[in-house]
Amino acid sequence: MKVFRIKHNDAIFYATHEDGNIFKPLIAGQHEQENFPAVECLVLPIVVPSKIICVGLNYKEHAKELNMDMPEEPMIFFKPPSAIIGNKDSIILPSMSEHVDYEGELAVVIGQTAKNISPENAHKHIFGYTCANDVTARDLQKKDRLFARAKGFDTFAPIGPSIETNIADPSALTLRTIVNGKVRQEGNTSDMIYTPAELISFISRIMTLGPGDIILTGTPPGIGPLTSGDEVQVEIEGVGILTNSVVKDESIQAPVQ
Amino acid sequence: MKVFRIKHNDAIFYATHEDGNIFKPLIAGQHEQENFPAVECLVLPIVVPSKIICVGLNYKEHAKELNMDMPEEPMIFFKPPSAIIGNKDSIILPSMSEHVDYEGELAVVIGQTAKNISPENAHKHIFGYTCANDVTARDLQKKDRLFARAKGFDTFAPIGPSIETNIADPSALTLRTIVNGKVRQEGNTSDMIYTPAELISFISRIMTLGPGDIILTGTPPGIGPLTSGDEVQVEIEGVGILTNSVVKDESIQAPVQ
Repeated sequence: MKVFRIKHNDAIFYATHEDGNIFKPLIAGQHEQENFPAVECLVLPIVVPSKIICVGLNYKEHAKELNMDMPEEPMIFFKPPSAIIGNKDSIILPSMSEHVDYEGELAVVIGQTAKNISPENAHKHIFGYTCANDVTARDLQKKDRLFARAKGFDTFAPIGPSIETNIADPSALTLRTIVNGKVRQEGNTSDMIYTPAELISFISRIMTLGPGDIILTGTPPGIGPLTSGDEVQVEIEGVGILTNSVVKDESIQAPVQ
Repeated sequence: MKVFRIKHNDAIFYATHEDGNIFKPLIAGQHEQENFPAVECLVLPIVVPSKIICVGLNYKEHAKELNMDMPEEPMIFFKPPSAIIGNKDSIILPSMSEHVDYEGELAVVIGQTAKNISPENAHKHIFGYTCANDVTARDLQKKDRLFARAKGFDTFAPIGPSIETNIADPSALTLRTIVNGKVRQEGNTSDMIYTPAELISFISRIMTLGPGDIILTGTPPGIGPLTSGDEVQVEIEGVGILTNSVVKDESIQAPVQ
């Protein structure tokens, strides 16, 4: 089942979209209508997370591509919730960077509070899966050593378009990143070093995961740059296709100190 | 003015505490009572931020202590909101680490959305200041290179006890960290490399800051370890004293993979 986050007038709710013209609230009986015409609805980013946890170097082939050793433990970092955009929103290339890369990733959406969870019980805490793009200012990542700036710009966390709740086994999905119609990344989640269940277990031993929190599970080989005017898509088998355009930041920037 | 975040029955609101026995809502006329007896109130952590941005190596003397060069630009990283605890709550030493340090810091609380703000206009976006402790698992910080795990454990972001709204100039405040009554860190915010206004400007050129977001502005020299049974205090002139006890994690952990 694909679940969308919908705004209709002032109401925000999760809904399914079985019929192309109609959104149906996920929880029936809480709204005046049972059906909402799609034309009256705004499709929002799927979650407002309290945190976004990302995992570096989680595909064996990507670690090889970078000549890096396999990590002994998952390598985690954060993106801020302010970076989130939804399907069809624009990635804005910041004037502070001259090299911004796409990184297509499978994202896990947490459905239930998770603390000290074993890998065996992790599935109970998963709401579903979605597509994500861990957009990265590569020059700033190299310069800073820390990732917060390079990965934290507004619009650098495209997610969506919907949450797929029916993925029984997330460890055999083809993932592709497509730029202007050309496949640039292609991998399979079977190549992951740590499975989503192992990641949830590891992270939940550090910090409490809450409903709506998302985990970006790493990127396969083939990362590369984005330029203004590009269209970038992250397509994951059975999960969906996340499409975003790329534009330059034309806003007036505060003076550099 | 010192502002506290209070829970009274099901209501959560900001309040002042001029008289020791009474909390007064910051915004009058929205509650059934004008005065809330302190004994009926629970004092909550001052904010539920959408993000916590921390700054590394922002005191000249601390950079010298670590034999590090002064950073060319602010070095930022994140702590997750799940790490927040309030005054008098316990810092829990995780079983995953064998070396946890205190780092006393001045924190800025954002009051108004900030994007591309100049240093000159930064003050308009500040709600106030509070004390914070950037608790850090030093062994994991060294091992991971990235800071997310080392600085992201639950309880690793003590903040409070209140938000001080009347600090006209945050650049001449004495900051002390006191462990079991002994002063361990002592510095003055005049030693900062980047002022709070410059930090807000820099960060707001990367990501949109929202109300309740907090910025931890770095730590002076004298960082050191905490052990179970310690009491740690961060005292900032005119801002307040944040007191936390330290306990070991006795919870049952999920099996290590």
